[in-house]
Amino acid sequence: VNPIDRLTEAFEHFPGIGPRQARRFVQYLLTRPAGTRAELAKAIGELGASSAQCKSCYRWFVKTASQKGFCGVCASTSRERGTICVVEKDADIDGVERSGYRGLYFVLGGVVPLAAEEPEKYVRLRELVHRTEADAAKKELSEVILGLSATTEGDHTRALLQEKLAPLAAALKFKLSSLGRGLSTGSELEYADPDTIASALNSRA
Amino acid sequence: VNPIDRLTEAFEHFPGIGPRQARRFVQYLLTRPAGTRAELAKAIGELGASSAQCKSCYRWFVKTASQKGFCGVCASTSRERGTICVVEKDADIDGVERSGYRGLYFVLGGVVPLAAEEPEKYVRLRELVHRTEADAAKKELSEVILGLSATTEGDHTRALLQEKLAPLAAALKFKLSSLGRGLSTGSELEYADPDTIASALNSRA
Amino acid sequence: VNPIDRLTEAFEHFPGIGPRQARRFVQYLLTRPAGTRAELAKAIGELGASSAQCKSCYRWFVKTASQKGFCGVCASTSRERGTICVVEKDADIDGVERSGYRGLYFVLGGVVPLAAEEPEKYVRLRELVHRTEADAAKKELSEVILGLSATTEGDHTRALLQEKLAPLAAALKFKLSSLGRGLSTGSELEYADPDTIASALNSRA
Amino acid sequence: VNPIDRLTEAFEHFPGIGPRQARRFVQYLLTRPAGTRAELAKAIGELGASSAQCKSCYRWFVKTASQKGFCGVCASTSRERGTICVVEKDADIDGVERSGYRGLYFVLGGVVPLAAEEPEKYVRLRELVHRTEADAAKKELSEVILGLSATTEGDHTRALLQEKLAPLAAALKFKLSSLGRGLSTGSELEYADPDTIASALNSRA
Repeated sequence: VNPIDRLTEAFEHFPGIGPRQARRFVQYLLTRPAGTRAELAKAIGELGASSAQCKSCYRWFVKTASQKGFCGVCASTSRERGTICVVEKDADIDGVERSGYRGLYFVLGGVVPLAAEEPEKYVRLRELVHRTEADAAKKELSEVILGLSATTEGDHTRALLQEKLAPLAAALKFKLSSLGRGLSTGSELEYADPDTIASALNSRA
Repeated sequence: VNPIDRLTEAFEHFPGIGPRQARRFVQYLLTRPAGTRAELAKAIGELGASSAQCKSCYRWFVKTASQKGFCGVCASTSRERGTICVVEKDADIDGVERSGYRGLYFVLGGVVPLAAEEPEKYVRLRELVHRTEADAAKKELSEVILGLSATTEGDHTRALLQEKLAPLAAALKFKLSSLGRGLSTGSELEYADPDTIASALNSRA
Repeated sequence: VNPIDRLTEAFEHFPGIGPRQARRFVQYLLTRPAGTRAELAKAIGELGASSAQCKSCYRWFVKTASQKGFCGVCASTSRERGTICVVEKDADIDGVERSGYRGLYFVLGGVVPLAAEEPEKYVRLRELVHRTEADAAKKELSEVILGLSATTEGDHTRALLQEKLAPLAAALKFKLSSLGRGLSTGSELEYADPDTIASALNSRA
Repeated sequence: VNPIDRLTEAFEHFPGIGPRQARRFVQYLLTRPAGTRAELAKAIGELGASSAQCKSCYRWFVKTASQKGFCGVCASTSRERGTICVVEKDADIDGVERSGYRGLYFVLGGVVPLAAEEPEKYVRLRELVHRTEADAAKKELSEVILGLSATTEGDHTRALLQEKLAPLAAALKFKLSSLGRGLSTGSELEYADPDTIASALNSRA
């Protein structure tokens, strides 16, 4: 395989990128100055060295001397340290932050497929249990919010987590909750699906 | 104006129809047998005679001898008669019915525009107050659910209704609630807007 | 069936209208004053009486005393009467007019499905042959342009018409042509399909 | 700026990529094994060394010992060497190849913006003139096809090229042509814009 095809194939694995756009990326790079390409290559190569996965929430962050393995949120003393929002992936954190949430996070690393027999192979279930136990031992934990998507796989994963965490919540005395369902901002009742309306009726207040 | 243009213009007022599709409608009718057109004309002309607006919820329904001015839902004895879901328009009722809701309805007849000074000109506010008072007098009313869209105008209308109905709810002892906000079924957390995430965190359970 | 359901079903037969929008049409009509509905019904009912199909090109037009069964274009003396553009349906004429075309038209009334055995059942093939013969007899005909869509059925219909009209064109000495294929205005080469590029290379000038 | 932000910014310059997707690319890379990232970095870094720009048509291609600076098409003896299709960019060649074209190419390297005063700064105008003269000198050149997009800038660029190449075409006796305009494959007459219909009428055959 020649380098152009190999690079095209690598780009095809990027999220949301098909063969045509992968080829356009390579064309784009071919027309850049060699220096630009070298910089990009360097940035990609150094990504591992300059970044780390948080020891507490498992998100990826840029290393700095002071944080000792913890990301900015986990290292912060001004966050509400008793609340953990469990999300599927790093990218979900951005939206939750913009919503004004001030607690901590835990990144599951994925969802559990419907037919999966060993959830631990897909998500950080053991690590989550460990985290809640550790936080509870420090008398810090008051609530774990399951911040999963309202999709079939998100629902399946939430059910698995609830099953696993409910006994822990009872024993360690923390609240276990899930994001509310209902009409999303900007949506019209006429075009909402029956399921969403049922949720909205259910969570009415 | 000739009949083709006049009919085209009439179709342009239909919801969601632009000039091009209005013209296609006329072309379509021109190619139908005269009998089909006559039937359609008859059906439209008789719409008023064969249908009526429910005296209780203001939705439109097909008249039958037995119901005496009430639609099927309002005339039914098997519905939960203590709950009223207030919706903007007739079409909203379909979705709420499909969600499994078993209470009654009240059709506002629209939303109140943001700059409107007299809400009564846009929605059936007086009729809603009258309905709640009448139902409460019959000892039937336990809850009024504001089933408005999660849009700016829907929010504005809900705020107006709450202002108006809150004293009544206190005096007549019924609950006043609104549809819950949050992630709608099928939506991914990553693509939810901050407002929706804030609502979902707020209505977590 | 009640009148609301019957009218809903009638609207579902309108081009491009599904069950949901058909229901919205009925809701819309229910909320109009009875006078508006009566006017609409009248306009639909009178459509047949006030309009006619052109004896020459078969398009539908609004009758006026003077034209004696011919539409405005066919009755006009300022059009190029030697050119006939054959189109599938009335609505196609609008676009061709806006392109600056100054000749006459013939409306086929449809396309011929791929598997059809008797094209005459689907399009006005006999009428088209008759029209070309009549125009040629008046020494008026110089060109017949097949103005069909660039779709599979359009291509199939064009092939059938060519087969039928080619001997006539030779005998009556008129030109038989088809609309050019190629890049449509505004389209980028990169996103054009191979077929369109092949046509564009073929019709290069 | 930290490495994650720097890499995000680099991806934002990729064609068709916005800030959100750029961030997803970085997240994706962070979760890959270090070896995968190293390979990608290597492939990007080596892109320059392993590829070259064709001396004749200016497209980018993977270097091999035998071709001596010419791409596969330009080096081939089985192509129709008398025809040059002038395209805007490398990616346009794919589509033209799939259309069955068997001649040679010339990559302009862009289009000329409407307000541009010096076209040479935007496209390889001098190189194109040189190429036609060289091919003509070898008695090889019979036609130059301007294979530009049917966009405003494509039209502007074509007009500039025609002005420049017309005297050359007359002097060196080659044909100068442009891609045909008209209905693109699959398009319906009813939805074609007037400009496209005018072109289709113009290029009728």
